[in-house]
This record gives sequence, structure tokens and C-alpha cells, in this order.
Amino acid sequence: MNFLEQRIKEDGRVYPGNVLSVDSFLNHQMDVSLYKEMGNEFFRRFGHEKIDKILTIEASGIGIACVAAINFGVPVLFAKKAKTSNIDESLFVSEVFSYTHHITNRVVVSKKYLHPGERILIIDDFLANGSAVHCMLDLLKQAQCIPVGIGIAVEKGFQPGGENLRKEGYHLESLAIIESMNADTGEIIFRAQEA
Amino acid sequence: MNFLEQRIKEDGRVYPGNVLSVDSFLNHQMDVSLYKEMGNEFFRRFGHEKIDKILTIEASGIGIACVAAINFGVPVLFAKKAKTSNIDESLFVSEVFSYTHHITNRVVVSKKYLHPGERILIIDDFLANGSAVHCMLDLLKQAQCIPVGIGIAVEKGFQPGGENLRKEGYHLESLAIIESMNADTGEIIFRAQEA
Repeated sequence: MNFLEQRIKEDGRVYPGNVLSVDSFLNHQMDVSLYKEMGNEFFRRFGHEKIDKILTIEASGIGIACVAAINFGVPVLFAKKAKTSNIDESLFVSEVFSYTHHITNRVVVSKKYLHPGERILIIDDFLANGSAVHCMLDLLKQAQCIPVGIGIAVEKGFQPGGENLRKEGYHLESLAIIESMNADTGEIIFRAQEA
Repeated sequence: MNFLEQRIKEDGRVYPGNVLSVDSFLNHQMDVSLYKEMGNEFFRRFGHEKIDKILTIEASGIGIACVAAINFGVPVLFAKKAKTSNIDESLFVSEVFSYTHHITNRVVVSKKYLHPGERILIIDDFLANGSAVHCMLDLLKQAQCIPVGIGIAVEKGFQPGGENLRKEGYHLESLAIIESMNADTGEIIFRAQEA
């Protein structure tokens, strides 16, 4: 069991409906020393690649991406939720569906910060159905960037996002993959990963 | 001129209506090596204080707060924009007015992560009218926490937020304070600060 699996086991909370709360250390209160370990691990898994920039999405991916970026020595760009319906030509635009809130949000990045041929590492906190990652992949496609890899903190392995991305040939690395969880007992089973 | 003033002078863009764009390095694309320097400087200014936690607000404060928190060795908590109108009793709630978008957003933090007597450092990217900082101070007041200080990257010194907070007795430290700027010439004048 790696450091993140251990922490999820200790401090994660399972609720009915396959809800995992990790808001004491990952996506509301943020344990930055854990983020540093995650940054080290992302670098161990992707550090051999040439990476020009990290892309993440507002809001809870930002902290993880910024701390990881210290290892990689590259800037972070975050896709922003569009605040207005006026989308001008200076922006790449895509959509992300929130299964939690049952709404579609438009997200944008400035065309100034993604250029054809740039090699981009996507980082986010959670992967379940893959909506946020597909949104970021769509932005990279519009910009003609190369998605070098996708680094995720916690993947819900029983939802289809991860499997679909692997089938599509992306280099996806999730630091913890939850195989199943039980709201009655609180038990969380992780998928075995190579050390 | 310190490192952040220098960077603003080089890469900031002034637009009519006293708009300063720093989205190439601070609040859209994020230069994490600059964030590290900012973290060092926040620690130089606040490191003598006992600090239990850093509070910031979604979204663009999160990266700065997380990188700074490495210096302080404390967790970061971020105030979230409320996604639904259902606010339950587990949350502290406050409001922030966006002068950019002319709307009031409700923001929340879980009561689990702020406790009476905790000493909190507020960190955010921008201070203009002070709406976001006052929102965070309100959350801390509800939680009976002690606001030890307020660390800001860029203060618009010609808007009233900073002056009001200093009059109210808060320990406010802004790494760069813009005294005035000129959209015609692009010139930016900084307020002199002690080294």
C-alpha cells in the first residue's frame, strides 16, 4: 500500500452512492506535505518525458498541479470555468459535465498559453467518469498540443473513465485506484499497482 | 524593486479601467518558480508568527497558498464557491462580491477544519476592494479563529481594500503594491516598501 492509499484508508470516508470524501487532506483542506510526496511520485512516473507545461482544471486540481510542477520545473496552466456567456476568439473553449451537480460547465484557456507541438502533462485530483480529463484533452487537441500523460491522485476504478483513457492509448497514472468501497463497513479496496 | 514588482513590470499588461492582467504568470498560467519566491517572502514576513493553517479562496489563490504552505509546514484550507443553494449546518457561509462580474457568490468552508483559537494566515493573489479578504475574515470570525495576518501577491493601492484593512489593525503584507498605472503608456508605479 503506497503513501496515498494509506492516507485514504486512514482519513477517507465512504458514503452511500460510491461517494468517497477526502476533503480533510486532498480537496478542501489540503495537506501540502502529502502533495509534495505526490509531486515526487508523479515525477518518478513521468519525469523521463519531455514536458513543457502542466494543465489542470479549476479548482481542486490547482494545488496538486502547482506543488508537482516544482519537481518538473515547468509552469502550470489551469482551465477556468467560464464566468460569462461571452467567449471571445482569444480562448479555447470546452465543456465538462459535473456528475455531482448535474450541470455542464464551459471551461476556457487562453490561446496565448497553449501552442502547437507543446508537450503537456495533465494533472487532476480525481478521475471517475473522465469528464474533466476529456475536457482537457479536447482543449489540447484544439491547440494542437501533445498530451504526454495524465497524472491523477485518486481514480475510481469501478467507474469507466480510467479504463476508457487506457484503451484510447493515453499514458494514465493514478496514484491510488479504488477497486471497490463499502459504505456500510467503510472498507476501501485498492487495485494492486507495481511498485 | 523586488522580484514580483520586476516581473509585473516586465510581463503585466495594463488595460483601460485600471485593469492589470498578470495571467501569463500569476492567475491563469502560473510560474511556480515565482510562487516559490513568493512563498519565501511570505515566510520572511510572517514566519515569526505561530500559524496553524493557511486559508485561501477558490480559485487563483490556491496555487500560491499551497506553494507558500511548504515554507510554513501547515495545511491549506480553501473557501469554496457554493454550488447549490442547500447550505447545511456543517458549513460556515459568507458572501463575496465580484466587481469584475458584478455578482455576489456564496462561499463555504467546512466547520470540521476551522476551530476556535486556531491561528490562521490568509493568502490570496489580488487585493483591490477587499471583498474576498473580508469574506475570509468573516468565515474566521464565525469559527472564532484568530486572523494572524493577510498575505497578498498584488495589491491595487489606489483601491480602498488595503487601506481599510490596515486601519482595522490587520497585519497585511502585499508583495507588490500598485500606486498607479497608465493604460496609454503601460506604465506601472509601485508604492515603495521597506526591504
